[in-house]
Amino acid sequence: MKISIVGGTGKLGAAIARRLAKAGEPVTIGSRSRESAEEVAAELGFAITGTDNRSAAEAGEIVFITVPFAAQDATLREIAPYLQGKIVVDTTVPLMPPKVMRVQLPPEGSAAVRAQRLLGEGVTLVSAFHNVAAHKLIKDEDVGCDILVFGDDKAAREIVVSLAGLMGLRALHGGPLANSAAAEALTSVLIFLNKAYQIDGAGVRITGVADAPLA
Amino acid sequence: MKISIVGGTGKLGAAIARRLAKAGEPVTIGSRSRESAEEVAAELGFAITGTDNRSAAEAGEIVFITVPFAAQDATLREIAPYLQGKIVVDTTVPLMPPKVMRVQLPPEGSAAVRAQRLLGEGVTLVSAFHNVAAHKLIKDEDVGCDILVFGDDKAAREIVVSLAGLMGLRALHGGPLANSAAAEALTSVLIFLNKAYQIDGAGVRITGVADAPLA
Repeated sequence: MKISIVGGTGKLGAAIARRLAKAGEPVTIGSRSRESAEEVAAELGFAITGTDNRSAAEAGEIVFITVPFAAQDATLREIAPYLQGKIVVDTTVPLMPPKVMRVQLPPEGSAAVRAQRLLGEGVTLVSAFHNVAAHKLIKDEDVGCDILVFGDDKAAREIVVSLAGLMGLRALHGGPLANSAAAEALTSVLIFLNKAYQIDGAGVRITGVADAPLA
Repeated sequence: MKISIVGGTGKLGAAIARRLAKAGEPVTIGSRSRESAEEVAAELGFAITGTDNRSAAEAGEIVFITVPFAAQDATLREIAPYLQGKIVVDTTVPLMPPKVMRVQLPPEGSAAVRAQRLLGEGVTLVSAFHNVAAHKLIKDEDVGCDILVFGDDKAAREIVVSLAGLMGLRALHGGPLANSAAAEALTSVLIFLNKAYQIDGAGVRITGVADAPLA
């Protein structure tokens, strides 16, 4: 399946693009500026193409959204027509600067549910990659973090779990899209932990789950 | 400090009481029924006393609340007068049966913030122990789960972190009370994981945090 990453010049988007492309998946990254996307694509190497967000959304069969929370609304409205009938993987964490260490979930309950409402029922929304530190993901190192994958469509979740596996990550089904609130909120806790314990890149691992296939 | 556990005949309350008492802390457990509390206290052994919830709240300098979400409101209203000036450790997870695998945070954002509003500013509220499986905690085994401790008062959080340490658990400061939403929501995800992967007692560990003291 053709993979695109809207907001792919950002830290998380670029890291996801690199891991997927290194695993052999051709990836298109989009940015507000086509030139920036082309530059970042060239820097990242592998089979990564840069273009504008709209073209990236149009080209992808699976489309990752990796823009900041403040840009989520405008970005999704712009590209919504090109996402209908597709799987969209939203990675948005509702961080509201300057209080990024404080959980501030949106009125919809989560950024993921907000995205689903913005995009409409024609889009199969999955959310994931909320907790992984982008600066670890961009390198070839163990990220020390599981990927919790949320969505109301189990088959779509499974595709994202598999993609994360290709990226060398352990991903787990976390339940319906509403459960995205847990991982989105956890990111503010991880940022707090980084500051409180003066560390760099706290992560989260689920214990008690063997590497067995989903029941 | 004298420790009481309101709702201490429940699975989580009894497990916390047993771990604290085994570590040498005398504990009073409360229940709606004094007789039930006396029976459970006798079964648990160690220096555990059973009484009614109101007397337990009155007796404690630190008071744990381990009642189900459906009973949180009524219980707190009943004992609020006896909690003023004290540290209250709320463990409430907003599970709403039958959909316990679905995150359903209350309008206040979290059960902890709801408890703070019910009890008023005279109470120093801390929330913790949302994610640990009670059936593991009641035994002398590794629970495979970190304890995230939330509260707006850092010194009160530190006391709870220390108590968890006495109980043989690793506890971490998770930030302000509002951040309790993350751990509360995560419990529904853990229940989902238990069912989806057919396991018994998924837990959560924070990675990247050395056992260094708080910065």
